Formats: sequence, structure tokens, C-alpha cells
Amino acid sequence: MPPCRIAVIGLGEIGLNRHLPVIAAHPGFEIVASAKRHPVATAIGGVQYRDYREMLASEPAIEAVAICTPPDVRGRIALDVIAAGKHVLLEKPPFSTLGAFRQVRLAAERAGVTLLGGWHSQFNLAVERARDFLADQQVASLEMVWNEDVAVYHPDQEWIWQAGGFGVFDAGVNGISILTRILPDPLVVRAATLRIPDGAQTPIAVEIDFAGLREEDRLHAGMDWRTPTAERTIAIVTRSGHHLRMPNSGRRLEIDGTVLVDEANLEYPHIYDRFAELIAGGKSQLDEWPLVVVADAYLIGRTLPADAQGVPGVRTGG
Amino acid sequence: MPPCRIAVIGLGEIGLNRHLPVIAAHPGFEIVASAKRHPVATAIGGVQYRDYREMLASEPAIEAVAICTPPDVRGRIALDVIAAGKHVLLEKPPFSTLGAFRQVRLAAERAGVTLLGGWHSQFNLAVERARDFLADQQVASLEMVWNEDVAVYHPDQEWIWQAGGFGVFDAGVNGISILTRILPDPLVVRAATLRIPDGAQTPIAVEIDFAGLREEDRLHAGMDWRTPTAERTIAIVTRSGHHLRMPNSGRRLEIDGTVLVDEANLEYPHIYDRFAELIAGGKSQLDEWPLVVVADAYLIGRTLPADAQGVPGVRTGG
Repeated sequence: MPPCRIAVIGLGEIGLNRHLPVIAAHPGFEIVASAKRHPVATAIGGVQYRDYREMLASEPAIEAVAICTPPDVRGRIALDVIAAGKHVLLEKPPFSTLGAFRQVRLAAERAGVTLLGGWHSQFNLAVERARDFLADQQVASLEMVWNEDVAVYHPDQEWIWQAGGFGVFDAGVNGISILTRILPDPLVVRAATLRIPDGAQTPIAVEIDFAGLREEDRLHAGMDWRTPTAERTIAIVTRSGHHLRMPNSGRRLEIDGTVLVDEANLEYPHIYDRFAELIAGGKSQLDEWPLVVVADAYLIGRTLPADAQGVPGVRTGG
Repeated sequence: MPPCRIAVIGLGEIGLNRHLPVIAAHPGFEIVASAKRHPVATAIGGVQYRDYREMLASEPAIEAVAICTPPDVRGRIALDVIAAGKHVLLEKPPFSTLGAFRQVRLAAERAGVTLLGGWHSQFNLAVERARDFLADQQVASLEMVWNEDVAVYHPDQEWIWQAGGFGVFDAGVNGISILTRILPDPLVVRAATLRIPDGAQTPIAVEIDFAGLREEDRLHAGMDWRTPTAERTIAIVTRSGHHLRMPNSGRRLEIDGTVLVDEANLEYPHIYDRFAELIAGGKSQLDEWPLVVVADAYLIGRTLPADAQGVPGVRTGG
């Protein structure tokens, strides 16, 4: 089969450094064009357009599009791409509202095109192995820690503090997307606290308690952007006494002390493998559950103030 | 067919004054028992228990249960009722998280019992007529106004201002539940503002803009608990030029100036008619979309402070 002719919309950090090199190296895809409002220098982006609508109109050979813009405009762009009859791959989180999932899914079904929501952390081998192991288990305890120093990882992103910018959830939803993939039961938020810096609209630290099957089960997730050392780890104890540990953003899997998977970062190649499979099979994969968990934390979470002093991108009040 | 033996859990204002009289008058149901932590005087509640678990254990003849407690505990209770093999009717909003919808739906499917989420405002004849009319129409503009004076309608409800208490959404979600039922396309939040009184966790006033099919479409909902006069009205203009107006909480329907429906409040009898139908047919009806709209408003909405002076139930700071 000839490679699928693809275009990329949005060439920020992720589009430029994650998607383009993976597409260039993937036998199943061939880059045709890209769109970016402010032109950017790259030798592997195909014909570059400033307006994605012009790109869609000028390049009828395009069969699929990867949308790597910020989430708030992805819904609108996805509808235009689907209306042009192209398959769609979406960066994470696919959309910033749950309504957009429904609207875009419906449009893709009607148009008969493939949709893939690329929650990249779900595409680790360790995640699939953990999912298989947990399929017939019950979870007695869960601890997710997803901590970073925001000054190191998000120094110039003012948008993360604005309404719809997700704050610490922008990183933490990667861990949550692993949980919704590997756990055998729905992940139901029971209580949450969201610490929102003065002058920001989104949280810098979040704690979530999930409902377990029994009262005594303890399922907890903590995300904090005020920690000097980055840690992105999931630890699970099953009722039958097995201990799972997934450090390194879920790319390593230890069960009862034995290392079963310890992979380099192959998330994006795996995403494109899956995209090719889905297109060939005429199928779609679009999981809204990571965003449901975030939404539930907002719905019933208690908001508390946080000190904004020294947080980059937040304008502190007088 | 003999009437279905039903019990009610939660005898607050709604359980006592809406559910019990409707059950007592309905030929398809027969009250067996009720549960309320603090006993309450009623001649039509059957055997009264203080603990719903004791009720379930002591009254094996119960076939169905209506859960009328506040939303935050409904998920836990629903799982217990389903585990006991009973059909479940839920007051609105059925649950305070979207995760609970998934969890309880799954449990009901596995147990083979009927679930009905009783968004009462959806059970007006005017709503069904509007839905039929709009099925092949496109909406050019929408204006929902759902205003009340909180001091008149919610004077003693401190819980509405606490995390998960919904604030003005507690009333406004009734209007939203009509919209999600009658509109031919998914209701996607594009922008929102939430005004949260100092010392409260939930909004006293909300504005939502929804995404229309065209850029120039204006779809808007406003909810405000600071208005002296109550107004609960939906107005829609279709692209082909028809004007729909649904005043009186959606119980009246006018199309192009002609009154098509003007019904008394028959929502609860209609809910029990539907519950009987669903049980007989072995089916369920549980719509999470009204809560999805609320969740989306939280996810991307901008929060603004509001004056808490004179708002009952909010402890104003110094």
C-alpha cells in the first residue's frame, strides 16, 4: 500500500519536534504540507501554508491531517478538516470541552473518516502490559504522583493560566489518561481540591480522591507544579496483593519488583502506527475519559487560593 | 399487570411533595416503604426506615426505588439499590459527576435492572413537541433565560454554595436539560463566565455562549440568581425563519405566535409513566448531556468574583 499523504496543522514545539520527525521516518506516511500562522523553518514539513483552509483547498492530495494547535481551536479545525473528507489525528487533550468530542465524533461518523485522539501517554508498551495484567484484578490502592517544576517545564506558557488552559492538568492529564486506560473499573472522582494562584484561572496543584469498590480502598492522585524535582509515577496495589509501579511517565512497568517493560520514549511512533491501522480498518479511536476525570474534579472540587509569587506567566495582583 | 412495588429514599422537599403524592395517585405503582435519616410525618410513605440499607434488607418485596437525596450521595445509594436487584429512578441531576453516570450505568446493565434519570423539565409535552418541530431544522439563534431571586427560591440551602452544590446551575440545569433534549445538534460550550460570590464555591450567575453551525449564529444562555423577578424562558429562531418561545419553565410552547402547548405542571406524573414503560420494556434512559454542558462551562469558563452581600447561605468574609 502506498504511504498515506498527510499534513500537519500547528507547528509549535510539539508539531515541529514530535510529529514532523516521526512522520518523516514512518513508512506508512508521507508529508505533503503543513500550516502555521507564523512561518517556521523546517525541511521536513512539506509545502508550508499560513492558513490551514488555504492548504486544504490547494492540496487535494492530502488524505489525513494531524492537528497540533492548542486545544481550544482544535474543534473548529477538526470540523473543517472532516468536511474536506480527510482523516484526523488530534494532539492531547483532543478538545477542551466534552461537547466537542460529541460534535466532532458525529461529524467523522457521517463523513466516514478516521479519528484518532492521540493521548500520547497511552501509547507506551508498559501501559498495554499493565492493562492486560489488571484486566481481571481489583484495585485496593492507587497513588498517582505527577509533579514538576512549572518554571522548568512551562516557563513561557501564559495560556495555561487562562480559562480553559488546564494549568497543572495539562501535564497531569497524561497520568490520568494512563489510569483510564489500565484500570478495570471506571475512575470516579469522589473529592478534589484545586489550588488556584491569585490572578490565574487554572490550578497549580490538584489532589483527587477516587471512589473505590470498598470504603477502605484508597485511590488518590496528586499533581503539583511547585516541586523542584519532577516525578511522574503510578503505583497500584491489587486486592490479591500484587504491586505495580510505573515510574518515568508510565514508560517503565514493575510488577512485584520485576521490571517487565522499560522503554525509551516511543509514544509518537506508536501513535502513527495506530493511526495507519485505524485508517486501513476504517475505524476510529477517541477516548474522552481522561477529560471526564478533569471535568469531574472541576464539578465537585473545592478551590483554594495559592501563592502566585514566582510562578512564571501569572500576573500577581497588588 | 399488578402495580410495581416501589420505595423512596430521601424525603426532603422534593421526595415528600413531588414523588410521594404522584406515586400514591399512579395506578402503575404502589408504595411499600421509604427511608429518611430523620423521620418525617407522612401518611403515604409506607413503612418508614431511617437507614435505606435496613429498608432494602427488610423489604424484599420492593421492586423499584426512587432516589431523592441530594446528588452527592446518589451514586453510592444507586449502586447499593442495584446490587439488591431493584430498578432505579433518580432525581435530577442524577449524579454530581460524569464518572458516576458511567459507573452506575455499567452496574445496572450487568444487573439487568432499569435506570431512569428523571430530568423533570424534559418531561413536558411542550418539550416533545419542540423536539419534533426542530428535528429537521437548523438553529440560527438561541436565548435561554433562567433567572430567579435566590432569597425567594433557595433561602435555606447552604449546600448549594459548597463544592459540588452547583449554585445557579441547580436551577439552570433544568433549562439546559430542555435544550439538550430539543436541539437537533450537540450543544457545545464555546465560552462561559461564572460569577462566584466571595466565600462561596459555586456560581450565583452564569453566561454561556454555545458554538453554532455558522460563525454568525448566536446561541446564548444566561442564569442569574440576583434578579427580583423569576423568568425561565427559551427562545429559538430557526434558519428558515420560525420563532419558538417556551416560557414558564418550558411548559408552554409558542411557534410563530401560535400557542401549541400550555400545560400545567405534569412533569412528575409523566416521569412515573415513563418509568413504568421502561420497566415493562426492560430498558433504561439516563442522559448525561445536561451535566456535560455544566462540566464544559467549568472546564473553559472564566470565573469572576461577585458580591456576596445579602446572599442567603454565603458566609461573607471580613
